[in-house]
Amino acid sequence: MQHPLDQAIALTPLAEHRFAGQTSPAYANMVGPFGGTTCAVMLQAALLHPQRLGDPIALTVNFAAPVADGAFEIDARPVRTNRSTQHWVVQLLQDGAVAATATAVFAQRRTTWSAAEAAAPADMPPASSLPRASLQGRPPWVRQFDMRFAEGGMPEPFDGLEQPHARSRLWVRDEPPRPLDFAALASLCDSFFPRVFIRRRKLAPIGTVSLTTYFHADAAQLAAQGERHLLATARALAYRNGYFDQSAEVWADGGDLLASTHQMVYYRD
Amino acid sequence: MQHPLDQAIALTPLAEHRFAGQTSPAYANMVGPFGGTTCAVMLQAALLHPQRLGDPIALTVNFAAPVADGAFEIDARPVRTNRSTQHWVVQLLQDGAVAATATAVFAQRRTTWSAAEAAAPADMPPASSLPRASLQGRPPWVRQFDMRFAEGGMPEPFDGLEQPHARSRLWVRDEPPRPLDFAALASLCDSFFPRVFIRRRKLAPIGTVSLTTYFHADAAQLAAQGERHLLATARALAYRNGYFDQSAEVWADGGDLLASTHQMVYYRD
Repeated sequence: MQHPLDQAIALTPLAEHRFAGQTSPAYANMVGPFGGTTCAVMLQAALLHPQRLGDPIALTVNFAAPVADGAFEIDARPVRTNRSTQHWVVQLLQDGAVAATATAVFAQRRTTWSAAEAAAPADMPPASSLPRASLQGRPPWVRQFDMRFAEGGMPEPFDGLEQPHARSRLWVRDEPPRPLDFAALASLCDSFFPRVFIRRRKLAPIGTVSLTTYFHADAAQLAAQGERHLLATARALAYRNGYFDQSAEVWADGGDLLASTHQMVYYRD
Repeated sequence: MQHPLDQAIALTPLAEHRFAGQTSPAYANMVGPFGGTTCAVMLQAALLHPQRLGDPIALTVNFAAPVADGAFEIDARPVRTNRSTQHWVVQLLQDGAVAATATAVFAQRRTTWSAAEAAAPADMPPASSLPRASLQGRPPWVRQFDMRFAEGGMPEPFDGLEQPHARSRLWVRDEPPRPLDFAALASLCDSFFPRVFIRRRKLAPIGTVSLTTYFHADAAQLAAQGERHLLATARALAYRNGYFDQSAEVWADGGDLLASTHQMVYYRD
């Protein structure tokens, strides 16, 4: 049995820089697919490309239009390959129109002086001691993650009582469990509930317009994490006239930062 | 007299989606131009494009190869225009090769519920009470900014005594002063000294590979800031095997967040 994420990011090569894929009902959102699988499949096109050099360092996906359920094509081109870095321009197309654009930087890393500057939250209760977040009323994609919130889960109920902040701390992994890799991490980096829902304790139409993920870990560090829960933190800086930002970090359960991720999100009142 | 930044971002239309520009000696870096002017001129191509809709919300620039001093061309295409948002793919070319790629999201904002979540540092001494950062030994572009550090300036001297963090708080504006607009803000968002220099108190070869800027303000808010110093904060999360991240915020002197910006930066030992 293929994992649902592997089904969602499965691609068939069509031409040198062109792949065919299709959205997965398991990762359906309110309208169209979960943005995380869109990020993962656009990254996957570069990962699968025969000219690929090294591992992902940075990925930016811009959601240009709603992705319709069904077939899509991905155009993934290495526009510049240097000695140790490679730059990608990627587009997701439906019926010939651009539904999402992406750029990515890949690199062959080498061992250097390294240091942590931010630390994972020290006071997280173990994942096993926290309940799994409710799936009640959530779109299908939420079932594909096991989320356990220590702070800043989805408001229950949505009572409209505005909070002073929208910080979250949680344990999260794929459900069913799946060994961590770059595509899974790219997907998980879009799994944070919209900050404006938590801040305002009310639902409203929202949509991410741009999402950037930085990969701080190499493939071996991701493999070492395996299927275990990841520690994640998320927050916003400002909500202003239709757009808010979100920043989040994803940590290995041993405390190493694996990814940091940033979004700008459209919202309506 | 044209401001040096306006000289650096001056573009001549060549075709529907094509512009000609050239690097500016005023913004020279150690090798090639300051990355901030590269960001600003790639954004400027979209700003000048006759099909442009609204104001910038998000800009990501990937530095694919060193930009050589001299002429370049910019290809700027609106790949998807919706009712209130527009998505751009931009490339900077020299001798037909891609030196930088960018994507941008523009939008027409409308007035909604708005709120700040992060606050500007409350304890900043006034800019006039702090000395301007030294230009001694710095590349030419540093002269184009007036920077006044309350914390985390460039180490003097570079004594190699590693610090526990690389946080900075400063006042910064263009020098000579220039009214703030989106291009100037995009440029300023790359003016933070590399975190690894501050953390390690030593110089080393570095280069930004990917830079994302989120614009939280509209054109009127930028115009209201005028030529006055902006308040800025910067930090890193992790340095690992050749790449570190940087996140920074730029605040109006009245306390409103104008931009937040993130980078991944290559470094050598």
